[in-house]
Amino acid sequence: MVESADATAPTADADPDYRAAVVDLLAVIAYGEITAFERLAEDAKLAPSLADKLDLAQMASIEIAKVERLHERLRAFGVDPFEAMAPFRAPIDEFHGHTAPADWYEGLVKAYVGDGLANDFYREIAAYLDADTRELVVASMEAGTHSAFVVERVRAGIAEDHRLGGRLALWGRRLMGEALTQAQRVAADRDELSALLAGGVDRPGLDLAALGRMFTRLTERHMERMTELGLEA
Amino acid sequence: MVESADATAPTADADPDYRAAVVDLLAVIAYGEITAFERLAEDAKLAPSLADKLDLAQMASIEIAKVERLHERLRAFGVDPFEAMAPFRAPIDEFHGHTAPADWYEGLVKAYVGDGLANDFYREIAAYLDADTRELVVASMEAGTHSAFVVERVRAGIAEDHRLGGRLALWGRRLMGEALTQAQRVAADRDELSALLAGGVDRPGLDLAALGRMFTRLTERHMERMTELGLEA
Repeated sequence: MVESADATAPTADADPDYRAAVVDLLAVIAYGEITAFERLAEDAKLAPSLADKLDLAQMASIEIAKVERLHERLRAFGVDPFEAMAPFRAPIDEFHGHTAPADWYEGLVKAYVGDGLANDFYREIAAYLDADTRELVVASMEAGTHSAFVVERVRAGIAEDHRLGGRLALWGRRLMGEALTQAQRVAADRDELSALLAGGVDRPGLDLAALGRMFTRLTERHMERMTELGLEA
Repeated sequence: MVESADATAPTADADPDYRAAVVDLLAVIAYGEITAFERLAEDAKLAPSLADKLDLAQMASIEIAKVERLHERLRAFGVDPFEAMAPFRAPIDEFHGHTAPADWYEGLVKAYVGDGLANDFYREIAAYLDADTRELVVASMEAGTHSAFVVERVRAGIAEDHRLGGRLALWGRRLMGEALTQAQRVAADRDELSALLAGGVDRPGLDLAALGRMFTRLTERHMERMTELGLEA
């Protein structure tokens, strides 16, 4: 999939629409990392032990370390990174505003589900990008080192208190719903980015049927992650 | 100074008192970094722009990145890093509890004054350490890249609102007072660490008169930093 798309992928230099889409993509990822830092740093305060707090602080630092490379690429395009991120502040801030974790476990599930969704989306879009951009996007994906940490903590919490499982299952559904709502809002506002995914003229994107299948895959993987956490999806 | 002390510096393997002092030193630095992360991440929320927020988030990440090496060394001594940090949690948490910044500027001054004091102290103690430990302690010092950022922001703030200068000058004195109070508490509780600084048997530390001169130097440098910020010390 990656190879076949690569042969026809436009470069960001050649095609202004593709370039606008890439600028949007890098900017939304960068702003996502900044808010992930904030969210994880905030969750660290809820940590039941200093070791847990340090783990979350380290996760937060990994997110922020990725921002600089994305901003450098935006600057190389002659774009101010903060202007590029501006259109994505409201939808991403609203996502976080509507999904503020009430406790340590909700924070863990949000980090796990949110990173998982973001990584799945990056993987889906990567095939439609030129090699340079794809490399940057893939580098923004989680190393996955903290997945085991979250799964272990959440499963242990549910083992101790079975009601927690029911509450977190509802929480996971709410996270997915809010994420889709805000993603839809971004798609409606950002034509070039949407066109890249949906398959505009001369772009090797998805058609609308394929877009539907992509959302189905994202939803399925979300449900798999909920199951890994020991939660009903 | 560094060379002459080095010739007689004991190694952490040979001398149990020196080893206890080094364990305390690495642990207090590590816990200091963790709380510096928390403080900077919290201050990032007060940032007047997204660019300022990102700068603070990056400073926070630099602090947390240093913790792992300190913890590794503690583990190499057969010490649990979280047990080693435990005695320093109350004094450092109290320092932060008593000096919670009320706004963006107080946060900036606290970061600048706090990092400056910590670096001066590390520089003072470095001469009495074996080469391996000294290298770790020196690596924990700030790269100093964000000093210019803070000085520029604080000076611009004072230029806009002169009353700010008076308030921040008082704030700087309070920070120094709280830091000395908690440092004294640590010194009273941790005999080996104090002995390393004050010059116990077989240790190339300072005598009490030299300790007094060290505090004078720390205070002088604090006043220099306040002046750099455009504040009366």
